[in-house]
Amino acid sequence: MAKKDEQNFVMHIAKREDDFPQWYTDVILKTDMVDYSDVKGCMVIKPYGYGVWELIQSEMDKRFKETGHVNAYFPLFIPESLLMKEAEHVEGFAPEVAWVTHGGSEKLTERLAIRPTSETIIGSMYSKWIQSYRDLPVLMNQWCNVVRWEKSTRPFLRTSEFLWQEGHTAHETFDEAQEETMRMLGVYREFAENVLAIPVITGRKSEKEKFAGAQETYTMEAMMQDGKALQMGTSHNMGTNFAKSYDIQYLSKEGKLEYCFTTSWGTSTRMIGGLIMVHGDDRGLVLPPRVAPIQVAILPIAQHKPGVLEKADELLQTLKAAGVRAKVDSSDQTAGWKFNQWEMKGVPIRIEVGPKDIEKNQVVAVRRDDLEKQFIPMEEVSARIPAMLDEVHDGLFNKALKLREEKTTDATTFEQLCDGVQHGFVRAMWCGETGCELAIKEKSGGATTRCAPFEQKELSDVCVHCGKPAKTMTYFAKAY
Amino acid sequence: MAKKDEQNFVMHIAKREDDFPQWYTDVILKTDMVDYSDVKGCMVIKPYGYGVWELIQSEMDKRFKETGHVNAYFPLFIPESLLMKEAEHVEGFAPEVAWVTHGGSEKLTERLAIRPTSETIIGSMYSKWIQSYRDLPVLMNQWCNVVRWEKSTRPFLRTSEFLWQEGHTAHETFDEAQEETMRMLGVYREFAENVLAIPVITGRKSEKEKFAGAQETYTMEAMMQDGKALQMGTSHNMGTNFAKSYDIQYLSKEGKLEYCFTTSWGTSTRMIGGLIMVHGDDRGLVLPPRVAPIQVAILPIAQHKPGVLEKADELLQTLKAAGVRAKVDSSDQTAGWKFNQWEMKGVPIRIEVGPKDIEKNQVVAVRRDDLEKQFIPMEEVSARIPAMLDEVHDGLFNKALKLREEKTTDATTFEQLCDGVQHGFVRAMWCGETGCELAIKEKSGGATTRCAPFEQKELSDVCVHCGKPAKTMTYFAKAY
Repeated sequence: MAKKDEQNFVMHIAKREDDFPQWYTDVILKTDMVDYSDVKGCMVIKPYGYGVWELIQSEMDKRFKETGHVNAYFPLFIPESLLMKEAEHVEGFAPEVAWVTHGGSEKLTERLAIRPTSETIIGSMYSKWIQSYRDLPVLMNQWCNVVRWEKSTRPFLRTSEFLWQEGHTAHETFDEAQEETMRMLGVYREFAENVLAIPVITGRKSEKEKFAGAQETYTMEAMMQDGKALQMGTSHNMGTNFAKSYDIQYLSKEGKLEYCFTTSWGTSTRMIGGLIMVHGDDRGLVLPPRVAPIQVAILPIAQHKPGVLEKADELLQTLKAAGVRAKVDSSDQTAGWKFNQWEMKGVPIRIEVGPKDIEKNQVVAVRRDDLEKQFIPMEEVSARIPAMLDEVHDGLFNKALKLREEKTTDATTFEQLCDGVQHGFVRAMWCGETGCELAIKEKSGGATTRCAPFEQKELSDVCVHCGKPAKTMTYFAKAY
Repeated sequence: MAKKDEQNFVMHIAKREDDFPQWYTDVILKTDMVDYSDVKGCMVIKPYGYGVWELIQSEMDKRFKETGHVNAYFPLFIPESLLMKEAEHVEGFAPEVAWVTHGGSEKLTERLAIRPTSETIIGSMYSKWIQSYRDLPVLMNQWCNVVRWEKSTRPFLRTSEFLWQEGHTAHETFDEAQEETMRMLGVYREFAENVLAIPVITGRKSEKEKFAGAQETYTMEAMMQDGKALQMGTSHNMGTNFAKSYDIQYLSKEGKLEYCFTTSWGTSTRMIGGLIMVHGDDRGLVLPPRVAPIQVAILPIAQHKPGVLEKADELLQTLKAAGVRAKVDSSDQTAGWKFNQWEMKGVPIRIEVGPKDIEKNQVVAVRRDDLEKQFIPMEEVSARIPAMLDEVHDGLFNKALKLREEKTTDATTFEQLCDGVQHGFVRAMWCGETGCELAIKEKSGGATTRCAPFEQKELSDVCVHCGKPAKTMTYFAKAY
């Protein structure tokens, strides 16, 4: 009976190898991570999905504060004239801005953009707040919603409104700004690896792919199970571009008026899409333990038998005391249904406890990543389960790393590149020219430069496509 | 020298009795709580102000979760046709809605409202999610920004964009919805009193003052130092009004299709304005300890002398270990400047430690609320300071309660009412009719009904204004 339930249940999720996009949609909808709304391109983040975001926020925010940043909140609206001050920036963002034209029944004298990102409004405030070198550095972050009017959307990956954090800092020198840019990229990388269990490639974006208005953009890129790359976070050194457009100046120690060097860096709810596509399997979600709203599901077996529910509750208290986010499922569904339900929801560990286990003073623990059963003596639960959660984390990370390595190839011919990007990352030497980049994209069926990684290797001395002298080894891939 | 600094410094803040609105503006700007932005009616919440909001969020969120609620996130945009479905609701909110009409360069086929509150978009989702009595109750909350296009704005108190939380729940019966409405009003009250140190009157709003679309609105109201009331939070029982407009139905245990009973409840960054106007004094802010980003400022005296900075840092570590949010000010300003600075910033306790104190193995602690010096033996710091923070909290609460009592009078004649509302709350018997309410407002120079408190007293049996039979004892006041 459990077997039949299981089949019916899992049947509703498409298989990854048959139809990866459908698998993704099935997983996010059936696990109550997200839902579509009546507003085109906007998602509703349901409590289970929002629970993941709350944990992401909490882990990231701790890291931002440890590196000296404070949070603030800037307006949702940006007057059109303010947005227009940085030419490259506006060129990049204007096509996807949502415009407010009326307040109540009155037409506004100036249109207001809904922030697609906040460099402009924050820059205008920094201009007011920063007077002297004593005011520097300014190290702020903001958690908020932003809007980018997208034609083609997918929950978490690309939506017209999304939630994110955006850090904005101002410094005396280019070097300090560069140090900050790299520090925050490092924080992102450490977070991706140690919290989301996702290995990432970090490096520098091409001229074409960099942030509109930045001097340099750095990125972290991850490989999904379908062979496409996902940009998971970016960190920008703006040089003095925004300082000049928004008049962010300071009086130096030497009494000279100088432009600040600014940075910005951001990550978003897109990361949730990433962790689903990296770790999920045909049974559904597989949540990395450190952002799993429920880390352990306790299933009482034959729960009508005396003592079973009491023991389940005792386990719950033990786990809570050990700092584990646990939940007892004492609903009146069958055991088979519950197994599938919590597997589909990606809970890292399932614990079963029934009359026989109570007799033997043990529980059965099943890891979501390898589905293997382990028998754990009751008195070892509070030590073993936290350790097992770390093991699940490590297991997921290593599996994702192995996947990425299998999906990464080196190319010294353009044919090899075109082959390789059909199923993953391709490392190849590249001339760095935008014309060449566009030609590669067209001829390869959509491959883009992801980044020039910090760890360089000289595969040859000429560009894989045009044959001109190569500047960097670059990662290419099709991307979300 | 310290004396002169002090005078110069404090001079910049208007006195409360001379010009309360100017005092408020001086305090919020000079303490870096907030700043005006380039966007009319929108504020920038600076890190010191946002720090207060983060603590408010954390304390409230804990209470919401303890009462069984989960967080979610719904879209910023509400299609015009969806907003229009509940007639009373749209009548109340349409005049202050900001409208998005263009995405990029394209005109939208339907205008999108920026949420002034989310009953409509959440209602449309609940309609989809709720099928049977098994799905009930639904208990959700959302932390987000909302926009209400206001003509006349003041930071924290009334701004076009503000941050808030909005709870939205759905139930099987009116009684369950009513229980939830009252439970959350109780959470708000407990929070106001135990976290913000603000005593509040709770009760029911009049027909005219209730939320647009609600069956009943309950409120908590606080008295400011200038004799005006501030609505600090509201909790609404919607009955089946929204369920009928948004088709939120469930199949009952008896197999009948029934409408849900819904509630909503909200509090916002407005509370920060409230705590400033309740506790502040002519020296500046006075922050209630439980939401003070810095609870203790440690000032090293003669900090160039050997051992002083080391001792200050030792104190910092001791306090941090005791769970106190503390900070050492080792800037090169004078001691007098620092005293004033941290007083103005409202830090609940200032600790001074200099060579003489080190010799005597003690510190000097000064409470912000009474400014009295206390000498504390070094080894008692980790126990005494947390206790002293509680004493500051209690001191602030009692002072605010005393102020409210002094500013509250009973009226049995309309003259008494008109007199009383010039400097505070007036309790009076009232007929409950909207026409009478409007006449009272006009004739009294702006007094409105604040609520019919749960604790009723029969002052007479006729309406204080029109002489018709009285229905309730009601609080009247001028209000923000």
